[in-house]
Amino acid sequence: MIRFDCDYLEGAHPAILQKLVETNMDQTIGYGEDPYCAAAAEKIRKVCQTPDAAVHFLVGGTQTNTTVIYSILRPHEGVLAVTTGHINCHEVNAIEGTGHKVLAIPGENGKLTPKAIEDAYLAWKNDFSWEHIVKPGMVYVSQSTETGTLYTKAELEAISSMCKKYKLPLFLDGARLGYALAADGCDLTLPDIARLCDVFYIGGTKQGALFGEAVVIPDPNFIDSFRSLIKQRGGLLAKGRLLGIQFDVLFTDDLYFKLSQHAIDLAKKIKKGFEDKGYDFMCESATNQQFPILSYEQIERLKKDFSFDDYGPADENHRYVRFCTSWATTEENVNKLLEAI
Amino acid sequence: MIRFDCDYLEGAHPAILQKLVETNMDQTIGYGEDPYCAAAAEKIRKVCQTPDAAVHFLVGGTQTNTTVIYSILRPHEGVLAVTTGHINCHEVNAIEGTGHKVLAIPGENGKLTPKAIEDAYLAWKNDFSWEHIVKPGMVYVSQSTETGTLYTKAELEAISSMCKKYKLPLFLDGARLGYALAADGCDLTLPDIARLCDVFYIGGTKQGALFGEAVVIPDPNFIDSFRSLIKQRGGLLAKGRLLGIQFDVLFTDDLYFKLSQHAIDLAKKIKKGFEDKGYDFMCESATNQQFPILSYEQIERLKKDFSFDDYGPADENHRYVRFCTSWATTEENVNKLLEAI
Amino acid sequence: MIRFDCDYLEGAHPAILQKLVETNMDQTIGYGEDPYCAAAAEKIRKVCQTPDAAVHFLVGGTQTNTTVIYSILRPHEGVLAVTTGHINCHEVNAIEGTGHKVLAIPGENGKLTPKAIEDAYLAWKNDFSWEHIVKPGMVYVSQSTETGTLYTKAELEAISSMCKKYKLPLFLDGARLGYALAADGCDLTLPDIARLCDVFYIGGTKQGALFGEAVVIPDPNFIDSFRSLIKQRGGLLAKGRLLGIQFDVLFTDDLYFKLSQHAIDLAKKIKKGFEDKGYDFMCESATNQQFPILSYEQIERLKKDFSFDDYGPADENHRYVRFCTSWATTEENVNKLLEAI
Amino acid sequence: MIRFDCDYLEGAHPAILQKLVETNMDQTIGYGEDPYCAAAAEKIRKVCQTPDAAVHFLVGGTQTNTTVIYSILRPHEGVLAVTTGHINCHEVNAIEGTGHKVLAIPGENGKLTPKAIEDAYLAWKNDFSWEHIVKPGMVYVSQSTETGTLYTKAELEAISSMCKKYKLPLFLDGARLGYALAADGCDLTLPDIARLCDVFYIGGTKQGALFGEAVVIPDPNFIDSFRSLIKQRGGLLAKGRLLGIQFDVLFTDDLYFKLSQHAIDLAKKIKKGFEDKGYDFMCESATNQQFPILSYEQIERLKKDFSFDDYGPADENHRYVRFCTSWATTEENVNKLLEAI
Repeated sequence: MIRFDCDYLEGAHPAILQKLVETNMDQTIGYGEDPYCAAAAEKIRKVCQTPDAAVHFLVGGTQTNTTVIYSILRPHEGVLAVTTGHINCHEVNAIEGTGHKVLAIPGENGKLTPKAIEDAYLAWKNDFSWEHIVKPGMVYVSQSTETGTLYTKAELEAISSMCKKYKLPLFLDGARLGYALAADGCDLTLPDIARLCDVFYIGGTKQGALFGEAVVIPDPNFIDSFRSLIKQRGGLLAKGRLLGIQFDVLFTDDLYFKLSQHAIDLAKKIKKGFEDKGYDFMCESATNQQFPILSYEQIERLKKDFSFDDYGPADENHRYVRFCTSWATTEENVNKLLEAI
Repeated sequence: MIRFDCDYLEGAHPAILQKLVETNMDQTIGYGEDPYCAAAAEKIRKVCQTPDAAVHFLVGGTQTNTTVIYSILRPHEGVLAVTTGHINCHEVNAIEGTGHKVLAIPGENGKLTPKAIEDAYLAWKNDFSWEHIVKPGMVYVSQSTETGTLYTKAELEAISSMCKKYKLPLFLDGARLGYALAADGCDLTLPDIARLCDVFYIGGTKQGALFGEAVVIPDPNFIDSFRSLIKQRGGLLAKGRLLGIQFDVLFTDDLYFKLSQHAIDLAKKIKKGFEDKGYDFMCESATNQQFPILSYEQIERLKKDFSFDDYGPADENHRYVRFCTSWATTEENVNKLLEAI
Repeated sequence: MIRFDCDYLEGAHPAILQKLVETNMDQTIGYGEDPYCAAAAEKIRKVCQTPDAAVHFLVGGTQTNTTVIYSILRPHEGVLAVTTGHINCHEVNAIEGTGHKVLAIPGENGKLTPKAIEDAYLAWKNDFSWEHIVKPGMVYVSQSTETGTLYTKAELEAISSMCKKYKLPLFLDGARLGYALAADGCDLTLPDIARLCDVFYIGGTKQGALFGEAVVIPDPNFIDSFRSLIKQRGGLLAKGRLLGIQFDVLFTDDLYFKLSQHAIDLAKKIKKGFEDKGYDFMCESATNQQFPILSYEQIERLKKDFSFDDYGPADENHRYVRFCTSWATTEENVNKLLEAI
Repeated sequence: MIRFDCDYLEGAHPAILQKLVETNMDQTIGYGEDPYCAAAAEKIRKVCQTPDAAVHFLVGGTQTNTTVIYSILRPHEGVLAVTTGHINCHEVNAIEGTGHKVLAIPGENGKLTPKAIEDAYLAWKNDFSWEHIVKPGMVYVSQSTETGTLYTKAELEAISSMCKKYKLPLFLDGARLGYALAADGCDLTLPDIARLCDVFYIGGTKQGALFGEAVVIPDPNFIDSFRSLIKQRGGLLAKGRLLGIQFDVLFTDDLYFKLSQHAIDLAKKIKKGFEDKGYDFMCESATNQQFPILSYEQIERLKKDFSFDDYGPADENHRYVRFCTSWATTEENVNKLLEAI
């Protein structure tokens, strides 16, 4: 079975494992206050051009989303997100479990628009019973989105401006940020994102690490007592240095960007392969997730040798499916897939 | 100013006030364990034909909705409701504050359908990542709905069957239940509702009481330790007998039903008055809420003497508005309104 | 049966009922934005000498405690209170239900001391793993306390200073504030309390109203969006004017203070009666709650004609019990009790 | 610097790292549904002699405690634990964040007693206002405890019987379970624990793994939908196989027990070393945590070369400190410590 279901099928990039082995018997204090975390944070601050940023390492995405969001909102506030947003669809009651509504808005190509943010905010503000309605308290976007689409620099700047206009903190979920940055047509950089967002994270789990997400808070005073909040949510890893070591390796010699580029190159190959054979797609994606439309028959045939995710019915005879590449995908496997379709 | 904004503009029916005055210096123990609550509960059990039901008295609707819903759901579950449902729109983060998502579904005429319930349940059950998705854990309906529409007996029976099929407890918000029962075309009775729902409440606040909602749990074992949960949510009134006294009066000599009929008769008069003058309506309502469409000009003119609620723009030149009647509305005031339009 | 179990055995002072009857058919908008609430708030601002204060009316004590506390604390913080504090003992998981620990400290005579506050704060601050420990985030005191004792002006000033030193907001639960202010030896006034506390409430439920607690926030900017938080917790009464009317009456012609004095006078009579017959007390109380120590035999005998609360075993043969007076207690009933002991 | 501060100073046992390296490029589906997790679960079921048990792998202790406890309790319930329990002291508001009070009871040598459980339960049950009080809903114990003490088989059986008597589920925190099982005088085995507890976990983080705790639920139906609850709390690791691989290695060829024995042997050596030189201890511990009493002077001197944890003042001139051993502690470092004291 050759797997394309997701981008967390394998372990970690060998350089990470090697560093874990090398440092294994070092003794460090726990909970992320060790020199490895400090070094990794410093490298991230440098690449983001945010010399003062607070950088925190958490284990996984749901944990990170929940901890960031509940650290920002007041009890009567909710978080604006597209309907397809991860926090709205795939984290059970994680956000609601902290007392906040996900204010879901239909997106355009999986993306929020400044107008949708303004409309939602003004709908609350102008309602005669606004005190009885959840106040939009922040904005959540993902780069890339759940459907593989991308915010351009102009789009994110417009969203950021709208957020500032209504004093809505902007949070960017970067579980797949590396793949987004490496995609054709992405004119955003880490320093751009750091300039435009109040908080964001750089995904590790799907990007070459065993696990881990690096939260960047450009203005370190933006969130008070964040470490206690991480601890409370069960996200403060005892051997925190494991996160520091991994991100240190990822941000040494541009490894993070090289691995992302690798995944994008192979995704483009898959995309072209399907296009060349006349397949349609659920949506245009320039990132490591591709969503071709397959007939039930094709799905059954492919399933014998390949695994991929089901994204629901396209029409009576076809379904949307997802093929993911990652840092670990091999060209050999991609070739086998393209031969099979 | 003559007010039609809502159905809680005045105090209580005089018979209630009189009974409060008469019983004022009686000494009773607190928190609803007094003889007045016992008597009122017994009358409610009788009129619902549920001899074993647990009956609890709470102060207001948001409190009641929250307490009932969080008493039923497990942490990973949410409550299915129409998008326009009160719990989705007008209770801030009350439900989310207990850790649960409101799984909002577009309704038909403000109502849930059995198919929508089934679709939502199966969408969860059949998703390959169902463990990452909020499980539909119960169903919330209102009678009448937020837009004044009504479930027929056949409709509620179909919903109840669907709920049983998927083991989803059914909860009916009856903040305006009396008005619904009195409406033309409503073939549901209290015993029907008690037979079809796992829990429901009989509204007092909007129906002639100073305040108060009577929760009926036909199978008294359905919710464990409900009194502690009410206390925890701040809903266990110290002088609980105030609730008992009010519901005792309301359910003596059919007062509850008579007051409801009064409101419906005047609502029909308002409806006919608008219809006769050619006004259109946001929706067809047989209950005490009427939603005619008025021009901005008409609104400005009427506003000098009458108050009513704004329900948003209908088109460029018109808006939806709401006129409510209640047990306290006078024919005289309705006549003045009809003269003015 | 003559009842002394608590101070919420009867309805409301007749002047309140009369005003409710008089105003019954007035039409007002809901949720506390009516002229009655405005008038009552103004009277309370005047008597507290806090011209800018925000004044909010809620229905009951648990609701008020919960809403105030969760409006102030960040997620990693808890509220300091004496072990016997109402929020620690008698509100189920109300505070914890909003995500916060009650940091209970043994009191002296039921009271917090500045030293205990400082010790608790420094124990957190100086712990090497402080980020893993609930941060003391505010202080909760009651006047009078659960055991009927009183903070003197000097004591409350010392607590307030300590709170300021460590930036801990101070919240005073005044469910029985009137009785406290009327007690011999209480040198605190409402303006003192308004000067020393960040938020406090003036109890109505136990002090002559049907129900209701008036929250005073001397600096109106101290809590943001408090009305939405009240709504969310189910505490925003639809017919809010019922609260305004009651507090308006209570703060007209010093009725609140006169009713309190009445209860205190009768409590002193009870106290003296027990003292004269040689009874000991659980604690020295100058307020409307008296806690004599009775033998099992005496309890059994008295129980035939009088009701009172049990406060647990004093020794093998005796128990602590509580007799409460209130605005509604009659001298006649007190005399009967004193004859019986 | 030679570190004895805690038992999570190093990475993982080399056999674990080696297996991670070997399996690194295998492709598996995520979230713990891979063959490695299945194999590890099977080994744990075997060693616990619980063929039907559900076994789940989580990342860390606070996460595990919170997820288990909130999966069991109803909203009005709390968890009984000793005052020094980890959930009461070192997890911020984690438990309260799910709505539940930690009902802290002073322990004996850091341990709960059956009598303390019964007293707490009956104090609730017999209180006249029990509906206003948090109901003891389950019992939390740790083996070993926070102070390194141990429950004997007789003690845990007595606790388990008491729990059954009052229908209180029993949950055992086994973050240091291996060290406990290896300690002199511990007559409990994994099958005993599985027989006596409703749920428990086998710690990995402090016992040779990079991270990870294995939750065992002997009756797999005891907790419904546990995987969704883990996901909701952010504890469902994307690359779940990392946990499976680690526990598979730990439960192959008794590695878990051998590593534990190693730590205990060195702890005994430390203990004897201090005893021989006349030091007193905070408490008698047979496990991998030793708490000698040192003078301020000694502490200052030792701190230059060794790190250890501070446990607060013993008297004016002395403090309690903690030295931990682990699977990774070397005899060489222990010898250096003993020379230094």
